[in-house]
Amino acid sequence: MNSITLLQPGKIVFGEGSLKELSNDTILEGSNSILLLVATPLLQAVEEIVKSLKSKNKQVQLVEYKFLGEPTFSQFNILLNENQGFNPDCVIGIGGGSVLDCAKLLAALINNSQKLEDVVGIGLLNGCSIKLICIPTTSGTGSEVSPNAILLNEDTQAKSGIISPYLVPDACYLDPVLTVSLPSKLTAETGIDALSHCIEAYTNKFAHPTVDVYALKGIQLIAENIQEACENGSNIEARSALLLGSMYGGLCLGPVNTSAVHALSYGLGGKFHVPHGLSNAILMPEVLRFNLSANPKRHADVARALGITLEGSDEEIALAGIEKIEAISKACNIPQRLIEIGVTEDVLPELADIAMKVTRLLKNNPREVTREDAIGIYKRLL
Amino acid sequence: MNSITLLQPGKIVFGEGSLKELSNDTILEGSNSILLLVATPLLQAVEEIVKSLKSKNKQVQLVEYKFLGEPTFSQFNILLNENQGFNPDCVIGIGGGSVLDCAKLLAALINNSQKLEDVVGIGLLNGCSIKLICIPTTSGTGSEVSPNAILLNEDTQAKSGIISPYLVPDACYLDPVLTVSLPSKLTAETGIDALSHCIEAYTNKFAHPTVDVYALKGIQLIAENIQEACENGSNIEARSALLLGSMYGGLCLGPVNTSAVHALSYGLGGKFHVPHGLSNAILMPEVLRFNLSANPKRHADVARALGITLEGSDEEIALAGIEKIEAISKACNIPQRLIEIGVTEDVLPELADIAMKVTRLLKNNPREVTREDAIGIYKRLL
Repeated sequence: MNSITLLQPGKIVFGEGSLKELSNDTILEGSNSILLLVATPLLQAVEEIVKSLKSKNKQVQLVEYKFLGEPTFSQFNILLNENQGFNPDCVIGIGGGSVLDCAKLLAALINNSQKLEDVVGIGLLNGCSIKLICIPTTSGTGSEVSPNAILLNEDTQAKSGIISPYLVPDACYLDPVLTVSLPSKLTAETGIDALSHCIEAYTNKFAHPTVDVYALKGIQLIAENIQEACENGSNIEARSALLLGSMYGGLCLGPVNTSAVHALSYGLGGKFHVPHGLSNAILMPEVLRFNLSANPKRHADVARALGITLEGSDEEIALAGIEKIEAISKACNIPQRLIEIGVTEDVLPELADIAMKVTRLLKNNPREVTREDAIGIYKRLL
Repeated sequence: MNSITLLQPGKIVFGEGSLKELSNDTILEGSNSILLLVATPLLQAVEEIVKSLKSKNKQVQLVEYKFLGEPTFSQFNILLNENQGFNPDCVIGIGGGSVLDCAKLLAALINNSQKLEDVVGIGLLNGCSIKLICIPTTSGTGSEVSPNAILLNEDTQAKSGIISPYLVPDACYLDPVLTVSLPSKLTAETGIDALSHCIEAYTNKFAHPTVDVYALKGIQLIAENIQEACENGSNIEARSALLLGSMYGGLCLGPVNTSAVHALSYGLGGKFHVPHGLSNAILMPEVLRFNLSANPKRHADVARALGITLEGSDEEIALAGIEKIEAISKACNIPQRLIEIGVTEDVLPELADIAMKVTRLLKNNPREVTREDAIGIYKRLL
């Protein structure tokens, strides 16, 4: 069995209403100054927490996260400069993936001689002494448990990953109540993104038994609950399952990570500003069809976790699984073709060029993807 | 879905030879004085680590753990008094469950105004500021990831649990090489103990989906590998799988914990000094037969994880699973009857009295166990 290092928050609090327990967390006992980075729709939900923390004589800086779309380098640097002076000993992020990624980087870079530009890449952060708690309000990125933060570099129009053990939060709170108000469209796109984390980890060249456990459970939870969560957003059981599934997807990101779906998605996000989950959702079935031959057994396992009970060869079962993903995606009203999101044939070579540069993910893919393969995959999705 | 808090080391390093990486762990970067509590057979294996840590200008106190059997209150207090003066900022335990439990308590109680006697029970520790790394050399207790430490109270002849979030290590290293020299008998007994952690968590009244994941994987890994590890101790794949299975058992202990097998085992350990794993191994099949009717579905799931492929009712499948546990246990040369370990009918009422006091575990059992039930279970095992 290959060696592996699993990093994750030492504390994962899960449950309906668990946000209420945050201000009593033992992690905050030693903190005197707490920075809360909060997505606008959550400002009201944190009022009680702020009050409770202040009543314990803690300094609290409440920062509203107002940016739309994927966060950029300059947006993050604005946040950093505005809050550098507060000197927190704990950062709490409450919001979707963008908010959590910025909270993680704030904890790492406030009062650090390293700049954002110094730490883009893998393992470049020197350390992080500020405590970090992440609280997701979407079931998608799994950022609350992962060592990753992703920002958009405006100069290159490419998404850039900052990957470091120091970006794994100390704790996360998974409160499904916070995800209830997420619109159906976002529930669908972020949910399929989480599904892709699990599937790309399980079919990964560097798959590992300790991560397979998370991947298969995540696939099952998401497949069983995403449509219900989209159609009936207040179904707390479906929201709970989706939030857990997303966390399992996040636990796949550190030690194994994603592969070609995410690599081919980079240009769509950076160049066309297609939401991350949506581009992954469109790409996933076709990339899986391309990958299938490299490991039919693992693709059949994915299909079974998706709920396929068909008897047959691994290939047949795996293909039924891919069709199930397409069916789920359609049922959640996700566009199926690139043309529907404004991508035309003439830009495919440029998209492929961007994808080819994401070697840190392409190296994980079970089958080698050439530039021509990438163009072919995009073309079949037009 | 019920609420749950999952606590575990933020860092789990797994792999053949991973012990070699210990001295470069980032957790040790901030440490200046490190106490290593090491089981006698491992003293040679840590020589390089001690040398490497000293070369980094760290003070190292190497303490040999010499006690045999389950550690007692007074043995622990000897360790505490002898090392109180060293004032470490990090404790590393390397050994079986007894060594790890003592290392965990040393980290918690050195330079703490609380005494051992103050913290026996659940959640009584006020805090722990000393870093803690645990490195198991048996595949059994799962102490390296759990919030538990168990000592024997000589006055009452009862095993006493110290349970606290502060006893969860910051990191653990799972190096299967360290388990290769473990004799077949100990491999068998500790392995079945780990299996019982998984099974008692999965069939638990407070079972939870997030813990089921660990329990089922642990059952599968242990069932598939324990006999091979006993018969061919140097098979590193079998040792690796068993070590992972044991870790999964440990991850079940915090949030869900064990039930009647462990409760009925307490008297055998405290009064008769029967090794913990052995007493659990003898008791498990009969307790599962007693429990089966309370949740046939879950007991059938356990059987499937054990490798049972039989078609039939949940009861039939579950019973085949229990027979499989007995077959594994016999194949590993574990005694099957209480009489073989010197327990006679006249002491059964006293054993039952001790078991009835372990309410913190009995409350988890899927079926209520009365004193008469307990005596009946013991009697059927004579």
